[in-house]
Amino acid sequence: MNAQELWKRFQTSLCQVPALDVSLDVSRMAFDDDFVERMRPALDKAFAAMDALEKGAIANPDEDRMVGHYWLRAPELAPSAEITAEIKDTLAAIEAFAAKVHAGAIRPERKPKFTRVLSIGIGGSALGPEFLADALGDPTTDKLHAHFIDNTDPDGIARELERIGAALDETLVVVMSKSGGTPETRNGMLVVAEAFRAAGLDFAKHAAAVTGAGSKLDQTVTKEGWLARFPMWDWVGGRTSETSAVGLVPGLLQGLDMKAVLAGAAAMDEATRVHDAARNPAALLALTWYLATDGRGSKDMVVLPYKDRLLLFSRYLQQLVMESLGKRLDLDGNRVDQGISVYGNKGSTDQHAYVQQLRDGVNNFFATFIRVLEDGGAGGEVEPGVTPGDYLHGFLLGTREALFANDRKSATITVPRVDARIVGALIALFERTVGFYATLVGINAYHQPGVEAGKKAAASVLALQDQARAGLSATPQTADQIAAAVGAPESAETIYLVLEHLAANGRATMTRGSHPGLTTFQAV
Amino acid sequence: MNAQELWKRFQTSLCQVPALDVSLDVSRMAFDDDFVERMRPALDKAFAAMDALEKGAIANPDEDRMVGHYWLRAPELAPSAEITAEIKDTLAAIEAFAAKVHAGAIRPERKPKFTRVLSIGIGGSALGPEFLADALGDPTTDKLHAHFIDNTDPDGIARELERIGAALDETLVVVMSKSGGTPETRNGMLVVAEAFRAAGLDFAKHAAAVTGAGSKLDQTVTKEGWLARFPMWDWVGGRTSETSAVGLVPGLLQGLDMKAVLAGAAAMDEATRVHDAARNPAALLALTWYLATDGRGSKDMVVLPYKDRLLLFSRYLQQLVMESLGKRLDLDGNRVDQGISVYGNKGSTDQHAYVQQLRDGVNNFFATFIRVLEDGGAGGEVEPGVTPGDYLHGFLLGTREALFANDRKSATITVPRVDARIVGALIALFERTVGFYATLVGINAYHQPGVEAGKKAAASVLALQDQARAGLSATPQTADQIAAAVGAPESAETIYLVLEHLAANGRATMTRGSHPGLTTFQAV
Repeated sequence: MNAQELWKRFQTSLCQVPALDVSLDVSRMAFDDDFVERMRPALDKAFAAMDALEKGAIANPDEDRMVGHYWLRAPELAPSAEITAEIKDTLAAIEAFAAKVHAGAIRPERKPKFTRVLSIGIGGSALGPEFLADALGDPTTDKLHAHFIDNTDPDGIARELERIGAALDETLVVVMSKSGGTPETRNGMLVVAEAFRAAGLDFAKHAAAVTGAGSKLDQTVTKEGWLARFPMWDWVGGRTSETSAVGLVPGLLQGLDMKAVLAGAAAMDEATRVHDAARNPAALLALTWYLATDGRGSKDMVVLPYKDRLLLFSRYLQQLVMESLGKRLDLDGNRVDQGISVYGNKGSTDQHAYVQQLRDGVNNFFATFIRVLEDGGAGGEVEPGVTPGDYLHGFLLGTREALFANDRKSATITVPRVDARIVGALIALFERTVGFYATLVGINAYHQPGVEAGKKAAASVLALQDQARAGLSATPQTADQIAAAVGAPESAETIYLVLEHLAANGRATMTRGSHPGLTTFQAV
Repeated sequence: MNAQELWKRFQTSLCQVPALDVSLDVSRMAFDDDFVERMRPALDKAFAAMDALEKGAIANPDEDRMVGHYWLRAPELAPSAEITAEIKDTLAAIEAFAAKVHAGAIRPERKPKFTRVLSIGIGGSALGPEFLADALGDPTTDKLHAHFIDNTDPDGIARELERIGAALDETLVVVMSKSGGTPETRNGMLVVAEAFRAAGLDFAKHAAAVTGAGSKLDQTVTKEGWLARFPMWDWVGGRTSETSAVGLVPGLLQGLDMKAVLAGAAAMDEATRVHDAARNPAALLALTWYLATDGRGSKDMVVLPYKDRLLLFSRYLQQLVMESLGKRLDLDGNRVDQGISVYGNKGSTDQHAYVQQLRDGVNNFFATFIRVLEDGGAGGEVEPGVTPGDYLHGFLLGTREALFANDRKSATITVPRVDARIVGALIALFERTVGFYATLVGINAYHQPGVEAGKKAAASVLALQDQARAGLSATPQTADQIAAAVGAPESAETIYLVLEHLAANGRATMTRGSHPGLTTFQAV
C-alpha cells in the first residue's frame, strides 16, 4: 500500500470523538472492511452484552455480581434508585471531606492542617490512584502531597515513611481494601499505625478508609473512631474502581479535578455506547485487538504514550487488560488460556530502550501510540522553528512509520492534552474496550479466579513457616529432617526456603552445606 | 514430577556463587541434563566468543568495535595499558570530583554547596542511573538529591524543574551523551541552561558532562568552561555503560557506593567466566532463555523482583535484553527476527495486577523471580511470629508454586540483600547472560541498526514540518493542497499530522472538516 492509499485509509478509518477531541487511528493495523463485516455478528453480541451489563445484568456470573463502574460516571443510569443515590451521596461526602481537610476544619492532632496524603492499597486500590497522582499532579500546586504504600516490603514501607519524615504529624492516611483482609494493605496499615504511635500520635485521628460496609476494616474504623469511611461496593471490581471512592478519595485530597475525570469518563462512555464500530472507538479498538492477536493473545500490546505524565498508564492497563482477559476457561467452560500481555513506559524514552527490537526483532506485538497534541511546559525553540515538543511528536510519527515499514502494526490514540477530563476518557475507553473484547472471545472479564490460587499457596507457605519454626531446636537439622519431624516430608523444599529467609533475618541459625540438602538449621 | 523429585532437582541444579551469596534456581524451568549436553557445543562456542571479547576482539563487527564493559570492573584485564590507565584514571577523577563537590570545594555560583544533581540523558544514559538512584538511594542520607530528565517532553522537563524549584542555584547538572547530538538530551540541556540563565545563573558553573572526547558536547564544555568532563569510550555501548562514567558520575555524586557496585560486578564477572554451565549462573540463565523461548523469543521474560527497590530493574533490563537481542539478521546475514520481550515491575504488587493472566491465561512467558533474603526496614510482627517480610517472601514462593502447578516456567535468583555490591552483581549477571545468549542464537548483541531508522524517520518528519510551515498562508488549505504546493504530495498524511500538532500549540490555525482530508490550515 503506497503513501497515498495509506493517507486515504487514515482519513476514511479515523474514528473521532468530537465531544472530547479524541481520535483513534487504526490505519496502521491493516484493518479491512471485510474484517469489520465478518466481525459484525460477534460485535453485535458484544454491544448487546454491554447494554445488558449497563442495565444491571449479572455480567459477572461466577461471582453472581452486577458490574457497575459505568454508573459511577452517570449515576442516573444505575439500575436502582438506591444505587443512584449511593453514588451521588458518596461523591458529595468525599468532596465535603476533602474540602474540610483542605480548609483545616478536619485537621491533624497537633498541626493546623494536613499537608500530605498517604494512600495504602494494592492492585486496583493503588495502580489507578498512583497513575492519576502522577499524571495530574503538580509539585507546586497540589493541595496535599501524595504518597503511596502498595506492597508488604518492610524496606519499601520504611522508605516511604522516611520520605514523609517529620511531616507524619500532618499526614492523612487513607487505607483502601474491600474486605480489609488483603494482607499487603493490612500490613502496611499496621506498620504505619505503629509509626504514628511511636511518634506519640493517635493514628485514628489521622486515618480514613475506603472499604466495604461491614468489612473487618470497617469495624476497625468504627471501633477506633477514624476520621471517615467511604464505601466500596461489590458491583465495582478493583481494576475498574478508579472512578469510585478508591480514586476519588486520594485524588480529591491531592487536589486533582476528579469531577473532570468523571465528566471525561462519562463523555467517553457516551461515545462508546454507539452500536457502530466506525464511530465507537472502544468497539474499533477491540476489533483491532482481535485482529492483531488472532483473538487469542498471540501478540503483546506495547503501550507507548509520548508524554511523561502518562508513564504509569501502562502499569494501570496491565491490570485492567491482563487481569480481565487472562482467563483459563471461556464462559462455556472450555479451556482457552486467553489474555493479552501489556507493557510499555513512555516515548521517546522507550525508543532508546527497545524500539530496536520492536522494529527489527521478534514480531510478537502491536503498538498503541498515545499522541498528545498540546506540548505544555516551557515553549522555546531548540533550533529555528523547532521546539522540544516538535521532536517528541516527530519521534512518535517516525517510529510509527519505521514500525509499519517493517510490517509492525500500530494504533494511535490522539488526545488534545493530558488533563483530568482526558485521563478519565482514556480510562473509560480501555474499560469498555476490555469489556467488548471479552465478549468477542467469550470470557468473563470481571472475575479473577487465578488470584485466589496464589493467595492460598502463600497462606500455606506461611503455615509451613510456623511449623518449620516450631521444628527448630538447638540441634542442627537439615530441611528434610525438620520436614519429617513436623509431619510435612513433602514440603522439604519450602521449609528450606522459609528457613533460609528466617536465617537471613536473624530468626534462625543456618550453616550452609555444600548443597541445600546438607544445609542445617537451628533455633536462634 | 512430585514434590520430592522437585526438591531433589532444586538441590542438584542450584547454581551458587559463594563469593556473593547469590544463587540461581532453574529447577522450575524443566531443565534436563540431556538439554545441557545437547547445548554443550553451542555453549562452548559462547564461552570462546566471550573469552575473545574480553581479550579485545572486535566483538561488534558491524561497527568495528571492541566491547569492553567487563574491563571497567577489572581494568587490569583490558587489552592495552592505555585502556587500563584510562579506566583507573577516570574512576579516580570522578571520585575526586565528587569528593570536592560534597566538601564544597567545588561549589555553585551563589551557594556554599551543591545539594542536588540533575542528570540529563536517555536510554543507556538514563535507565542505569535511574535504576541505581532508586535501588540504592536513601531520602535521608543521600549526599545530593537525585533528579533526572530523560526525554524531550517540554512538560516533563518543566515539571522536573518545578520539583527543583528555588534550589536550582544549588543544582549540579550532568549532561550525558556520547556524541552530544542525541536530540532528547541536547534539548533537555538547552531548556535547563535557559532556566539557569533566567535565574541569573551561569549554567557552565553548574554543569558537568559525560561524553566522547572531541564530541560536540565536549567542544561546548571546553568553550564554556564547564566544571568537568568525563569520557565515554567507543568500546562501551550505551546499554552496558552503568559501570562507566555514565553510572559513576551521577551515582558518586548522589553518594552511592559505586566502588561496591564495581566490586560486585567484578565478583559476578569472575563467577561467570567459568566454562561450566552448572557453576556459571550466566551460562545457565542463557541456556534457560534458550530453552524457554525455543531460541527465537517465543516467550516473554517477566521479571518479578520481590523488593520495592528493584522496581526499575525490569526497565533497565528491557534495554539491555531487547536492544541487544532484538535483531533482524544473524551474524551470517540470514533473516532471523530475534529478541526476547521483557516486562515486569515488582512483587507482590504485580500479583494484584496480572498474575491472574500469568497463572491462568495465555502461556507466553517465563518468569524470573528475584528473591531478596534480608527484609530490611522496620521489623515488627503483624501476627504472632509473622512479619510483613514473611508475607512478601511467602507470596513469592506461593506464586512460584502456583505458576509451576499450571505449567508456567520460572527461574529464581536469590540475593542476600539489595545493596551496591548486589546491584553490581545483578547487572553483570544479565550483561553476560545476554552475551552468551547472543552467541547461542548467532547474533551481534552490541549494535542497534534499527534505532537509526527511527531517528531518520523522525528527522524527515521535522524536515516536512519545516516545509509545511513554509507552505502555510492566509488562505485556508487542506493537507493535500499544502503537500502539493511544497512538492511533497506523497507526504500529505504526515503534513496533516504535523500541522495538527502545530495548531494545538498556537503555531498554525486549523479548521476541522468532517474528515482529515477536508480540514484546512492557515498561518497564524
